[in-house]
Amino acid sequence: MNRRVPLVAIVLVTLLSGCTRPAVDLEAEGEALMQLSRDWSDVAATNDLDAIMAGWAEDAVMMPPGIPAVEGKPAIRDYVEAAMQLPGFQISWEPLTVHVASSGDMAYMIERNVSTVTDSSGNLVTTYGKVVTVWRKDADGSWKNVIDMWNETPQPGG
Amino acid sequence: MNRRVPLVAIVLVTLLSGCTRPAVDLEAEGEALMQLSRDWSDVAATNDLDAIMAGWAEDAVMMPPGIPAVEGKPAIRDYVEAAMQLPGFQISWEPLTVHVASSGDMAYMIERNVSTVTDSSGNLVTTYGKVVTVWRKDADGSWKNVIDMWNETPQPGG
Repeated sequence: MNRRVPLVAIVLVTLLSGCTRPAVDLEAEGEALMQLSRDWSDVAATNDLDAIMAGWAEDAVMMPPGIPAVEGKPAIRDYVEAAMQLPGFQISWEPLTVHVASSGDMAYMIERNVSTVTDSSGNLVTTYGKVVTVWRKDADGSWKNVIDMWNETPQPGG
Repeated sequence: MNRRVPLVAIVLVTLLSGCTRPAVDLEAEGEALMQLSRDWSDVAATNDLDAIMAGWAEDAVMMPPGIPAVEGKPAIRDYVEAAMQLPGFQISWEPLTVHVASSGDMAYMIERNVSTVTDSSGNLVTTYGKVVTVWRKDADGSWKNVIDMWNETPQPGG
């Protein structure tokens, strides 16, 4: 038997394993994102602004109803800080569906949120929202929110 | 020279070219999407409902302000048809930024829109919106809209 055959086989196997990109487990990535969103909502219930801010990418764009887009993390921080100082302000959200790009570096979720604030008469006003979030996997492997957009929706089942 | 060398070289080149995925030209894909959105806005100016509907995927979700999500192309068709029948209804939009996943099968754009409708007093009311759209490349290679969401924003420069 020619001694070259094993060498060729080794070279081929090495090259083929090297050029196959690791398959992305899209279901696992999607589950991780859903859980990340749930955990982030729990963090939003705290007053820990730094922890809350960790969810957004540096270049994230927040798109609240009624005002221009809030572009970049420093502007988002100002917006969140102001919201936290509103009387009676609370917000929570939960993801409903997730889709991950086959490359595993972009994803979007449909979510819903509910927020409360105390109006000038002292009444607690509850607002229901539908939400689209877009996520990017950063170089360190962590998912960061790049788009956070919502608008008003009728009370579920209301 | 050993005659096996060229054979090995041919095998290697064939295998390597076969296992390298075609690189996605993300800039070209992004440009194509921006143009697709501009063209779609031009189509929206017509009364050709079938042509307008071609932009959405079968499972697209439209998320207009103030109402529950409009899920799936048949429901979106009903929504668009009803909008087209409002007195003085017109809508146009333009894309501002685009991001494409490295796999080239998912993308999102930030866009802006402007719509008009005649109110009950006969006055033309103009509404400005900021928009997030999410797109999926279908098996036939065409981009389809899967998320179409907007909310109100102050008049640009107003």
